[in-house]
Amino acid sequence: VSLYLCGRLDEAEREHWRACLQQALPEESILTVLDAQTREQVDVAVVANPAPGSLQGLPQLRLIQSLWAGVDRLLSDASLPEDIPLARMVDPAMNQAMAETALWAVLSLQRGFFEYARQQQQACWRVLPQRRADELHVSVLGLGQMGAATATRLAEQGYRVHAWRTRDTGAIPGLPASVVVHAGAQALPALAARSEILINLLPLTAATRGLLNAELLAALPAGAALVNLARGAHLVESDLIAALDSGHISQAVLDVFAVEPLPGQHPFWRHPRVSLLPHAAAQTDPRSAAAVVAANVRRLRQDQPLRHLVDRRRGY
Amino acid sequence: VSLYLCGRLDEAEREHWRACLQQALPEESILTVLDAQTREQVDVAVVANPAPGSLQGLPQLRLIQSLWAGVDRLLSDASLPEDIPLARMVDPAMNQAMAETALWAVLSLQRGFFEYARQQQQACWRVLPQRRADELHVSVLGLGQMGAATATRLAEQGYRVHAWRTRDTGAIPGLPASVVVHAGAQALPALAARSEILINLLPLTAATRGLLNAELLAALPAGAALVNLARGAHLVESDLIAALDSGHISQAVLDVFAVEPLPGQHPFWRHPRVSLLPHAAAQTDPRSAAAVVAANVRRLRQDQPLRHLVDRRRGY
Repeated sequence: VSLYLCGRLDEAEREHWRACLQQALPEESILTVLDAQTREQVDVAVVANPAPGSLQGLPQLRLIQSLWAGVDRLLSDASLPEDIPLARMVDPAMNQAMAETALWAVLSLQRGFFEYARQQQQACWRVLPQRRADELHVSVLGLGQMGAATATRLAEQGYRVHAWRTRDTGAIPGLPASVVVHAGAQALPALAARSEILINLLPLTAATRGLLNAELLAALPAGAALVNLARGAHLVESDLIAALDSGHISQAVLDVFAVEPLPGQHPFWRHPRVSLLPHAAAQTDPRSAAAVVAANVRRLRQDQPLRHLVDRRRGY
Repeated sequence: VSLYLCGRLDEAEREHWRACLQQALPEESILTVLDAQTREQVDVAVVANPAPGSLQGLPQLRLIQSLWAGVDRLLSDASLPEDIPLARMVDPAMNQAMAETALWAVLSLQRGFFEYARQQQQACWRVLPQRRADELHVSVLGLGQMGAATATRLAEQGYRVHAWRTRDTGAIPGLPASVVVHAGAQALPALAARSEILINLLPLTAATRGLLNAELLAALPAGAALVNLARGAHLVESDLIAALDSGHISQAVLDVFAVEPLPGQHPFWRHPRVSLLPHAAAQTDPRSAAAVVAANVRRLRQDQPLRHLVDRRRGY
């Protein structure tokens, strides 16, 4: 039996992943190219958004382990083998990276650092009012691994943190008691109305696609900021541009886009109130993620329950 | 007896301070203008860098309480009454504000957010390597209230934090054990050599003026960043510009300058590797600082030892 590592990785990335996986799983054979013979041996596919069809013709396949946390692109491949367990990546280093990016965005908004950068371009020396962390209402949409890590980190810094999820699935272990948790679509408008900063960390599903639209943006208080770190398809981009241009939204921090890489002519690049990241808010770290893959592979070999399995109907 | 509130405040600021002080000290008479009669009554001067000479002719003066943490400008007034106790501001909200600004700078440097802002200006989509917090060596110069608050906050986020002070004056209460403390001029070169980010929070004294010069910058590793949040006179500005232009220093975050407001023609405004703040890294918060002033005034009235007294020879 063998592992098959495949997906959209350049040569250096693929070799780094292969080396980290081999170190974590010295007993396994790891393939990056298949022939007619090795095709018969693959029982685990370790995938980074492989080209559609890549996982067909693997008769022994028993586990598809994603290297990425988001599996919406993977699930959009109609040829993805059905009935094979599919596991998401849950990498502690990636969760921390996401919490860092969110904290940087919140600090920048709280303390006016985006505005100071604009002032610098005008050689304008003007001190802005200084707000305390415990005066700022920050809401996090999504309470998966990354949403929970982010809400926790923000609460630790003293912000007033609310969190929202699509449905109540019980207590979140480790979430600070100061984080107020809301659930369900009916709770969203009231939460939005008190969110000076809204951070999106939802999974992309049929239920969350386009959630960040004109209606939700209008429900935010005047001068609020939007931070989208999840998926471009959560956001109706033209609605955001309208809300920025009207002044209702004072700043957006965007890491993800409907089309990536963002086309060079897209208005986000030059918008003075958009801070733009190239889908870099949180990357999987091969050093820690390889251990996560290894743990699931060993569970498979020992017929133990697999971790972080995706509910394909739910979409995450 | 009366309090005299004076210094470089605009009308709104002066009124806000007066109201906060009056609320914290309802039993005291607070004056913002003096005449021949009230001059005789003032025993406490609450000062925000008053014009030189402002504190002369106050025969009952027993305490000068600064509203600002830095007293270098106050001490440079040769007419400042001698032998009157002088207290610095130690405002918990200001300490936290400074720690926030330092954390924002460190997060921005760790995760490439200054570089991503430059890339945005070029419509360049390029993901940078992602470093973990525990891989980054950050050094804090100065272990007063703001240096200690900053070193603590950074250690809490997982950075490898070293701190340096001009001399060893014993343990710092509350400083995490993970913060490695160094003391004395002889320890500085070795510390600099391991500092990927150097944050200055020293008081400005004869011993620290010009400390951030070509020699110290050259001792930092190639690609290091400088964050000056203390005083402009700590830095030899032309040395920094040379180090930035040679590429040895990759980024500077500057809040303070030799001349403030920074003149419009100064090269820092337009330098692509300078992030500039208008002396806004940490402002005293009148709401919390008024309680600090009140506590010292009550100690004076009750003949108890005063807090946060400045050693005028030492300069802080």
